[in-house]
Amino acid sequence: MNNYADNPSAAILIIGNEILSGRTLDTNTQTISKSLGDFGITVFETRTVPDDKQAIIEATVALSKKYDYLFTTGGIGPTHDDITSLAISEAFGVAYSRNEVIYDVLCKFYESRGEAMNKAREKMAFIPEGSFLIQNEVSKVPGFAINNVYCLAGVPDIMKSMLDFVIPLLKHGRVVKSLTHTVMIGESKIAERFEALQNKYKAVDMGSYPFVKNGIHGTSLVLRSSDYEALDKAFLELTSVII
Amino acid sequence: MNNYADNPSAAILIIGNEILSGRTLDTNTQTISKSLGDFGITVFETRTVPDDKQAIIEATVALSKKYDYLFTTGGIGPTHDDITSLAISEAFGVAYSRNEVIYDVLCKFYESRGEAMNKAREKMAFIPEGSFLIQNEVSKVPGFAINNVYCLAGVPDIMKSMLDFVIPLLKHGRVVKSLTHTVMIGESKIAERFEALQNKYKAVDMGSYPFVKNGIHGTSLVLRSSDYEALDKAFLELTSVII
Repeated sequence: MNNYADNPSAAILIIGNEILSGRTLDTNTQTISKSLGDFGITVFETRTVPDDKQAIIEATVALSKKYDYLFTTGGIGPTHDDITSLAISEAFGVAYSRNEVIYDVLCKFYESRGEAMNKAREKMAFIPEGSFLIQNEVSKVPGFAINNVYCLAGVPDIMKSMLDFVIPLLKHGRVVKSLTHTVMIGESKIAERFEALQNKYKAVDMGSYPFVKNGIHGTSLVLRSSDYEALDKAFLELTSVII
Repeated sequence: MNNYADNPSAAILIIGNEILSGRTLDTNTQTISKSLGDFGITVFETRTVPDDKQAIIEATVALSKKYDYLFTTGGIGPTHDDITSLAISEAFGVAYSRNEVIYDVLCKFYESRGEAMNKAREKMAFIPEGSFLIQNEVSKVPGFAINNVYCLAGVPDIMKSMLDFVIPLLKHGRVVKSLTHTVMIGESKIAERFEALQNKYKAVDMGSYPFVKNGIHGTSLVLRSSDYEALDKAFLELTSVII
């Protein structure tokens, strides 16, 4: 991953016991990685931690220091196991306090449905002091950003809507383009030629992904680069030497 | 996640650019978490890193120190981007050397198909010196384990077969059972009663997972514990107070 080292870097922190127990398959990582990639922001690391305040704080501090952006998902709802806002407040040493903009939105929303405010609903207005609000088109409750950390919902469609709101506000890089050459040859037969090509085109990242289809071994050879000229040249050569 | 603190702990390290770029959806995390959970081994953290030697070494050292077991997936094939074996060797300061048992298996396998050994195929026999071999039913090439780190293939069916080989060899814990109560009520309406229940039954982990079905808000209330008596009591009370 050297040829796009100048691009903004990002990490993803998935928060939730349901991912670690295997109850829920995490698809947010793929959605975020793809979406950021479309704007030249490169994801270098992801972590998943339980709904445990200390674990969230440690991962947040480590990842926000190491990368330009950190995206978290999960733990910003109204129930007792939603502790992301509190943990992020403590991670940055700022107050965990009621945001009056969110509180007003919530009050009006529940009033319009003839429902009362309660402690759990009010909890959703508590975020780290000084945060920037992240709107979404799906639910009434915004996410928030503080420093370089963007805290999104865990529910995939709400998460995606928040991500779409955030991405235009970030620094973009040069998009890494990808070209795939798929052959019905096992990878151990083509590995040496593929490595020689990698050594020739240092500006292109080359990955080999084996699969089996109808009992026959095949390989997807994936070339990725933000240097489009080098990418095209390398791909042309790849498709002529490995057929 | 306190009520099963005595169970063996585990972490998962997913290795591969294809996951971080969003090209491939990682399903190995869910498979490993579920399988370990069935034997009372609790996954507390997962990370994904690129095919970058230094990144693999750092994550391996950190996670293998912190948890009883570390499972890695990916990067043990024949191509130049497969660097897990080398990285793990360096992480533990042992030689990266040819394992003669694997080498013989490979020689016989390719001979039986009338094919020649080559450098890429030989590479698959190079593992950290002193490793224990992890068999699988799908491909000829074993994974390996060194210290408390178990290195599995990235291809899901090969990974699963290796995991099934490894699990009987590990220390097992008390299985965490899970009971789910699903109601068509938004979570902010039931959060206070749910939290009161959590405070009453400390030995049970209670999680709330909202969803929308046909435009109506619902919530899955998930209770998890290795204390089955407490779990049953808590669930009985839950289903009588939140209907």
